[in-house]
Amino acid sequence: MRLVSTEIKIKEPKITLVGAGPGDPDLISLKGVKALQTAEVVLYDALVNRALLNHAPEDAIKIFVGKQSGDESFSQDAVNKLMVDYALNFGHVVRLKSGDPFVFARGFEEVDFAESYNIPTEIIPGISSATGVPALQKIPMIFGKLSESFWVLTGTNADGILSPDLVGAAKSSATVVVLMGIERIKEIAAIFQAEGKHRLPVAVIENGSSADEHMVVGIVDTIAELIEESHISSPALLVFGDVVSLHPSFARIRDFYHTLENVQD
Amino acid sequence: MRLVSTEIKIKEPKITLVGAGPGDPDLISLKGVKALQTAEVVLYDALVNRALLNHAPEDAIKIFVGKQSGDESFSQDAVNKLMVDYALNFGHVVRLKSGDPFVFARGFEEVDFAESYNIPTEIIPGISSATGVPALQKIPMIFGKLSESFWVLTGTNADGILSPDLVGAAKSSATVVVLMGIERIKEIAAIFQAEGKHRLPVAVIENGSSADEHMVVGIVDTIAELIEESHISSPALLVFGDVVSLHPSFARIRDFYHTLENVQD
Repeated sequence: MRLVSTEIKIKEPKITLVGAGPGDPDLISLKGVKALQTAEVVLYDALVNRALLNHAPEDAIKIFVGKQSGDESFSQDAVNKLMVDYALNFGHVVRLKSGDPFVFARGFEEVDFAESYNIPTEIIPGISSATGVPALQKIPMIFGKLSESFWVLTGTNADGILSPDLVGAAKSSATVVVLMGIERIKEIAAIFQAEGKHRLPVAVIENGSSADEHMVVGIVDTIAELIEESHISSPALLVFGDVVSLHPSFARIRDFYHTLENVQD
Repeated sequence: MRLVSTEIKIKEPKITLVGAGPGDPDLISLKGVKALQTAEVVLYDALVNRALLNHAPEDAIKIFVGKQSGDESFSQDAVNKLMVDYALNFGHVVRLKSGDPFVFARGFEEVDFAESYNIPTEIIPGISSATGVPALQKIPMIFGKLSESFWVLTGTNADGILSPDLVGAAKSSATVVVLMGIERIKEIAAIFQAEGKHRLPVAVIENGSSADEHMVVGIVDTIAELIEESHISSPALLVFGDVVSLHPSFARIRDFYHTLENVQD
């Protein structure tokens, strides 16, 4: 008779926040992949490409903790608690977040909560959509005389209101990238209009870096209408700035205004 | 008698700009690794970790095109021409740049030049030091009431002068990240001082994400002295903003000023 010994391995709790990048599963870092390969548990968000879960061991626990439209079942508190519970019971938890975990993604709150339980944490940054998505469309953040800095904002802030920083951004000469802003595009465009920037070039990029990416280019005065016509919806980001004029699809718009100006002359 | 046939393979020219990330070789994307694996030629910058060259085939041509201190042998024009020459003669050129190729890295100029020769180009974004390096130190770009946006600038602009955008940035409530600014830290600190932000927290991170990373935390009024005392030099980035106060090493500074204020009362 042989005895089957059941070994209980006590695993060290650890939480690694991994930035998954903007959408294309190949835009995760090698370091992120290595973290997933040693995960006992993966907690992932709605915008994370599911293909990334294949990097985790087959028997790892994979839990969706994203917010689906109208479903508020996973509050930040709930995610924090789940994360700590799983780390204490199973060992290495990978918290897989879209983009970069420390850019508009509440990564700090999660790390802070984990550390209050003395659970070691590690951050593996990701490619933020803010810079990565325009780059894929060959729109630079800075370029020669057009822009020498960039400012990244969210349309709606933590209080659910339009970010007051947008006013300063519209006054500035920085390239302005607005995440989570297209639902409030009319209000945002009005802020730029109040600064006289009616013809400032704007790009809207939906589902950046994924197979169903969709981009529309216009100017401040037309962008809300273009978004409506093109049925663009979240997730999408906005880029306001002269650098957008470097995109080939802007040439048509420029020609139109040139013609208009010559007619007026 | 057998004839040895010498086959000449005509390879399609292609140029891929790859963001290598901030320094740690594991922070490159999977997509970047795949591009390197199919490279006939790799042109790489000074700040690129040489370990990344191992992803390229052994017989690929690897050329250093970075600027070394005092050596101006590789101007942007020279890099552009090399890149196109190699693509036309050898096929797939990977242009490996530190950070992200479209954030202060002249990626657009290179793509534009390549396309003027009808050479197809592709961009593979990287983790920008601007967000990735503070994240590794667990300093978020935005957090609750402390900051709801971030502004990324260069200390010295293309004209070799202090970027005029710094004035607006110092007035704003955004987290301000300054790349290539530590040589001019006194001038930059003076801009924040002119806005009355004497005690705004500042972090300086040298060699972010690499083994010899070094961080110093202070406030606007002390940061130039701290940098001098710590012998921090380029490459290093600056983070100005209340989010820096979230770093554990800031607690000591806060305690000091609390004590000072109580004594003054």
